[in-house]
Amino acid sequence: MKSKLLIASLFIFTTAITAQNDSVMFRKIFTEALTNGKSYSNLNYLCKKIGGRLAGSPQAQQAVEWTFKAMKEAGADTVYLQECMVPHWIRGGKESARVISSGGKIIKDVPICALGNSIATPVQGITAQVIEVFGIAELEKMGKEKIQGKIVFFNQAMDPTNIETFRSYGGAVSQRWGGASEAVKYGAVAIIVRSVTLTQDDNPHTGSMGYKDSLNKIPACAISSNGANWLSDYLKTDKDLKFYLKTNCKFLPEEKSYNVVGELYGSDKNEGIITVGGHLDSWDTGEGAHDDGAGIVQSIEIIRIFKNIGIKPKHTIRAVAFMNEENGLRGGKKYAELAKLKNEKHTAAIESDAGGFSPRGFSSEMELIQKSKLKSWAPLFLPYGVYDFDNDGGGADIGPLREALGTPILELMPDSQRYFDYHHTAIDTFETVNKRELELGGASMAALIWMISEYGL
Amino acid sequence: MKSKLLIASLFIFTTAITAQNDSVMFRKIFTEALTNGKSYSNLNYLCKKIGGRLAGSPQAQQAVEWTFKAMKEAGADTVYLQECMVPHWIRGGKESARVISSGGKIIKDVPICALGNSIATPVQGITAQVIEVFGIAELEKMGKEKIQGKIVFFNQAMDPTNIETFRSYGGAVSQRWGGASEAVKYGAVAIIVRSVTLTQDDNPHTGSMGYKDSLNKIPACAISSNGANWLSDYLKTDKDLKFYLKTNCKFLPEEKSYNVVGELYGSDKNEGIITVGGHLDSWDTGEGAHDDGAGIVQSIEIIRIFKNIGIKPKHTIRAVAFMNEENGLRGGKKYAELAKLKNEKHTAAIESDAGGFSPRGFSSEMELIQKSKLKSWAPLFLPYGVYDFDNDGGGADIGPLREALGTPILELMPDSQRYFDYHHTAIDTFETVNKRELELGGASMAALIWMISEYGL
Repeated sequence: MKSKLLIASLFIFTTAITAQNDSVMFRKIFTEALTNGKSYSNLNYLCKKIGGRLAGSPQAQQAVEWTFKAMKEAGADTVYLQECMVPHWIRGGKESARVISSGGKIIKDVPICALGNSIATPVQGITAQVIEVFGIAELEKMGKEKIQGKIVFFNQAMDPTNIETFRSYGGAVSQRWGGASEAVKYGAVAIIVRSVTLTQDDNPHTGSMGYKDSLNKIPACAISSNGANWLSDYLKTDKDLKFYLKTNCKFLPEEKSYNVVGELYGSDKNEGIITVGGHLDSWDTGEGAHDDGAGIVQSIEIIRIFKNIGIKPKHTIRAVAFMNEENGLRGGKKYAELAKLKNEKHTAAIESDAGGFSPRGFSSEMELIQKSKLKSWAPLFLPYGVYDFDNDGGGADIGPLREALGTPILELMPDSQRYFDYHHTAIDTFETVNKRELELGGASMAALIWMISEYGL
Repeated sequence: MKSKLLIASLFIFTTAITAQNDSVMFRKIFTEALTNGKSYSNLNYLCKKIGGRLAGSPQAQQAVEWTFKAMKEAGADTVYLQECMVPHWIRGGKESARVISSGGKIIKDVPICALGNSIATPVQGITAQVIEVFGIAELEKMGKEKIQGKIVFFNQAMDPTNIETFRSYGGAVSQRWGGASEAVKYGAVAIIVRSVTLTQDDNPHTGSMGYKDSLNKIPACAISSNGANWLSDYLKTDKDLKFYLKTNCKFLPEEKSYNVVGELYGSDKNEGIITVGGHLDSWDTGEGAHDDGAGIVQSIEIIRIFKNIGIKPKHTIRAVAFMNEENGLRGGKKYAELAKLKNEKHTAAIESDAGGFSPRGFSSEMELIQKSKLKSWAPLFLPYGVYDFDNDGGGADIGPLREALGTPILELMPDSQRYFDYHHTAIDTFETVNKRELELGGASMAALIWMISEYGL
C-alpha cells in the first residue's frame, strides 16, 4: 500500500513538474512572439511589395522566392521547393455590370467581379433579363419556363445567427461554387451571385466556382451585398429590367509552381514530422492579407520562435507554404503525394487559414483518444485566451495528408466575426490585420507544436 | 432511500430543464441581437452626427438629448435625467511641438496633444531642453540638478507581454496621470508623455491627468509612439536639443449636465434593480466609438432586446448613460449618491467600457459565493464565445455604487488586443467597430442580466 502511494505521489509530482515546465515554455513562446515577432513586418512585405498572388501569376512566383528567403532568415535548417503544376486563371481587364430598365434607360452600374475559374462573357457582354432565386433548391421551383434565356441572380444571404461564421459560410457558398452548372440546366445564360459575406458594402467577393463537365459553361460573377440588396429591391418595381454583364477572364496554359518548405530538424531522429502551414496563393483582387498571408507569416514565425528561444523540439518542424489552395489545391495534394511516396512519418499537421485574428482554439480531425489528449492541454492555453478544442475540422491544404496517411490534422480557430468582411475582396489588405492578434495566433500554434512534439498525440 | 433518490432525480431533472430553458433564452437573445440589432446604427449616429463629446461641451449635451430619445425608441418604460455638475475643460485651438537642434536648426514637428485637465503653455509656448526618463521612479535618480528648467519626457512603454492589455495599461498610465506633479518637484517646466498604446503610429493619445494641490502646475501633453521613439533616438545624437511646446487648453466654469437613465420595469416589485451602463462623454480628439460609444449603444440595446423578444425580466433593468467618466466621474458618483439617498435595492451593476470588440467574459467584484454562482453559469455562455469569469474588476462608473451600497459589480471583457490602438485618439472612430462584435457584446450582457434577474447572485 505504501509503495502504491509512493508511486501515485511520484506520478502526481512528476505531472505537476511537467505542467509547470510546459507553462514556462508557453510563456517563453508568447513573450518571444509579442516582443521580437517578425510576422507583422513579413506580412507587410508580402502584401505591399508583392500583393495579390493567384496561382500561376508572376506575383505567385515572387511570393515563392520571397518565402524561400524568409524561411532561411527565420533560421530554418533547410529550405526547399516542391514542384507542382497549377491552373493559371486570369481576370483580364476591367469588368462591368449595369442595370437597364425595361424601358431601355440606364439605371445604375453595380459592382461585380468574375468568380474564379469562370469563363468570360462574349466580347460584347451579355444583356438579359434577371430572375432572382434564394439558393439552388429554388431553381427547380422556377423551372425552365421562367429561367430560359435569363441571368440567374442567386441571392441567398449568409445566416447571421451562427456565432462561428464559417458555419454560415458553409451554408451559403454552394450557390457560388455550383450555381452556374445548376442554372444552365434550366437554360440560364449567366449567373450573378450575392457575395458570401455578413457585411453590407460595395465590395464584390470573388472565390472559386466549378463547372460540371457534361454541361455548357456560362459566365459567373459575384455582386456586392449592397448591389444585391439594391437589385432585389429594384426587381420588385421593374421585374423585366435588363442586366448587362461584361467579364474578360480566361484560363491560360498551366504553369509550373511550388510549395515552399522550411524545416527545423528535430533532436530525435526517431520522432516524426509536425507540419504547420498556410497557403501562399491568394485571390487577385486584394493583397491576400487574412487569406492567407497571415497563415504564411505565422508558419514562418514558428521556425523563428523556436530558433530564437534556443529550443530544439524532438520532432522535425516543417513550415509549409502551400500553393494554389484557392482554385485547385494542387500544392496540398502534391505535399501528401510526396509524403506517401517517401513513406514519411507524420505525427500531426496544423493549418492557419481562417485569418490573422485573435486565436480562440483549434479544431481537429483525429481519433477520439487523440482529441481527449489534446483537450487535456487546454489549461495551459487558457491564460492566452485559447480555450476551445471541441470543434471538428482540419484545413483544406492538409486534408490530403490525412487522406493519404491518416495524419491527425488541426486548424487554428481565430475569432471569426470579421473574416467575411474581407474574404476574397479588394479590402483584404495589410491594414486590416492587427499586429498582436496575428502574433498571438502564431504563438498559439508554436505552443501546440511544442506539446505535440514533447508528448505526441 | 427510495424517496431520497426520487428527490435527487427530481432535482437533477428540474436543474436540467431550467438549464435548457435558459439556453433557449440565450439563443433568443443572441438571435435578436444579430438579426434585428440597432446598436450599430445607433453608434453610427452618436459618432458621425454628434462626434467627440467631452463633459461640458455642446456635443455632450446633444448626446444627452439623443440618448434620451434612443432609450424611448428602444422601448424603455420610463426615461429620465439625473443632473450633475461637470468640469468643462477645453483644448482650445491648434497645438504644436517642434524639435530644434542644439545648434538652433528646426529639425522636426512632432505630433502631440495636451493631456486632459492640463493647464496650457504660455501664449508664446515653452522652449526648453529635454530630459528622458522611463517612469516616475527614475526622477529621483536624475535629481534636481539634471531636471531643473527642463521638459521631462516620460518614455515608459506599455508591456507587450501581457495578453490582457488592460494590465499593461495599468502599469504605464501612472506617468500620464501623476507625472506632472512628480516632475515639478525637481524643477521641470513641462512634461511630455509617451502615448499609452501598444502600437506604433503618429496618433498622440490624450487622457486624464491631475495635479497635486500643494504643487505648481506645469503643462502636460502626450506624444505619439512614433514621435517618442524618434525623440528618444534623436536625443542620443543631440542631448542638448531644444523642444518647443504650445498648448491652449483651459478649464471654463463648471456646466450642468446629466446621466440619462432608461428603465424597463421588472415583473416583480420585490426584486431589485440591475444597472447596465457605459459612459456618454468621450475625449474630444476622436468620435468616442470604442470609448465608450459602444457601451452606450449596447446598454440601450439591452432594453430593445428584452422588449422585442417580449420578455419582462423579474428585476427592473436600468440602462444608464453616465456622464463625465473621462475627467471627473461626476455621473458615476451622482448615480451612487442618489441610489443611497433613495435607499434603492441594487442586485447587480454591469458596465461596458472596454471597447466594442468580441466578448470573452466578465470580470467582477463581489463576494466569493456570488462569484462561484456566476461561474456556474459559464456553460450557458460558452457557445457564444464567452468563457472567462475568473478576473477581478468592475467598472469606473459603477465603482461608487459598490462603495455606497456594496452592490456586486461586473464588467464586460471584450478581446483587448486592439483597444489601445484607438484609445483616446483621433482614430477612435465608428469605422473601427465591427457590427457583429458590437452586437455580441450587447447580447452577452443581456444574457447575463437574464440570469441575474432570474436567479439573483
